[in-house]
Amino acid sequence: MNKHRPLFITIEGGEGSGKTTMIGRLSAYMQNRSMPYLITREPGGIDIAEKIRSIILDPEHTAMDARTEALLYAAARRQHLVEKVEPALEQGVTVLCDRFVDSSLVYQGYARELGIEEVWSINAFAINQRMPDLTLLLDIEPRAGMSRILMNAEREVNRLDMESLAFHEKVREGYLQLAERFKDRIRLIDASRPPEQVEREMIRHLDAFLKDF
Amino acid sequence: MNKHRPLFITIEGGEGSGKTTMIGRLSAYMQNRSMPYLITREPGGIDIAEKIRSIILDPEHTAMDARTEALLYAAARRQHLVEKVEPALEQGVTVLCDRFVDSSLVYQGYARELGIEEVWSINAFAINQRMPDLTLLLDIEPRAGMSRILMNAEREVNRLDMESLAFHEKVREGYLQLAERFKDRIRLIDASRPPEQVEREMIRHLDAFLKDF
Repeated sequence: MNKHRPLFITIEGGEGSGKTTMIGRLSAYMQNRSMPYLITREPGGIDIAEKIRSIILDPEHTAMDARTEALLYAAARRQHLVEKVEPALEQGVTVLCDRFVDSSLVYQGYARELGIEEVWSINAFAINQRMPDLTLLLDIEPRAGMSRILMNAEREVNRLDMESLAFHEKVREGYLQLAERFKDRIRLIDASRPPEQVEREMIRHLDAFLKDF
Repeated sequence: MNKHRPLFITIEGGEGSGKTTMIGRLSAYMQNRSMPYLITREPGGIDIAEKIRSIILDPEHTAMDARTEALLYAAARRQHLVEKVEPALEQGVTVLCDRFVDSSLVYQGYARELGIEEVWSINAFAINQRMPDLTLLLDIEPRAGMSRILMNAEREVNRLDMESLAFHEKVREGYLQLAERFKDRIRLIDASRPPEQVEREMIRHLDAFLKDF
């Protein structure tokens, strides 16, 4: 049985990049190594964070300003972090989080054009230096990602899926910029390949990271 | 009749400094000069901002983190600004706002010790360069301010009033630091004097400001 200090791992990627599938595979990886782990995503059942999300998602709030929305996402992130992620890490539990700060930088900062630096400033305040140890970025060409979603009858089409292809291309562009900028933390993974290959590469990154950790 | 571009004026000060009384006097000043004006305070009846405030003030939310709270205040500020303050200014209406960004810097940044710079970073994002043209800071020694509140049977005692004297002294200290730092914008007014004198000084500042404006 391996003994490690707990890791904070985030999984990022555009629509149809296969995040949900790959989180399932990561879960098996953790179990095989007897590493205690928690899978979560914001707002993660945290009462305050859920209430904040419901303000963001209320369809009556058509007047919501993009900056108000970004501040609300940051507030929900903060509360999920302090109520769920940090207590787990403190108890030695590795946390796998589906989307985190990079999603805001890319979707709101880059694709919605609020500015990556500007959105970073409020997220830096929200996370207070709790950056992920490792981020697995599942990269896929938006046309391929969207076609996966459309082919998958089981997957519900959400608000983001409905955005234009141009929007998803900006999302991908933003992610690739972050991967370049945070080379030490982000592992860029070609997610256009079959799941077994994607999984193998993901595990190769994890093994390498854990060896040095 | 004076013609001016509309002003964005904020009124700041600790508990018992007389903000409400002085806003009433400012209102008379604006009327006498036929300057169209609007008196407001956050969340100002703005639906989204009111809902955000209700999350902050919900007594069941005992687990709310101080940073989550600061982000929520910034979100409510943003929405009040874009839905109420900016449309008024665009229509040529001067806005008198009871508390604004300085309150967050002082109460959350300084008195609650999140850090003035840190709280500034999220507020800079929220206001997106819409700083007040002029800020009237009503300064009073906390013992005197609190005794005013306790003597005034009509004024409801709120959450902030219940804080310790030490807290209110930190608030005053924070305000004095801001007045030093933003000399061009903030007018420090000794609010321990009788209302007529405070009003006279406030008007002197306003007249001088409008002359140069």
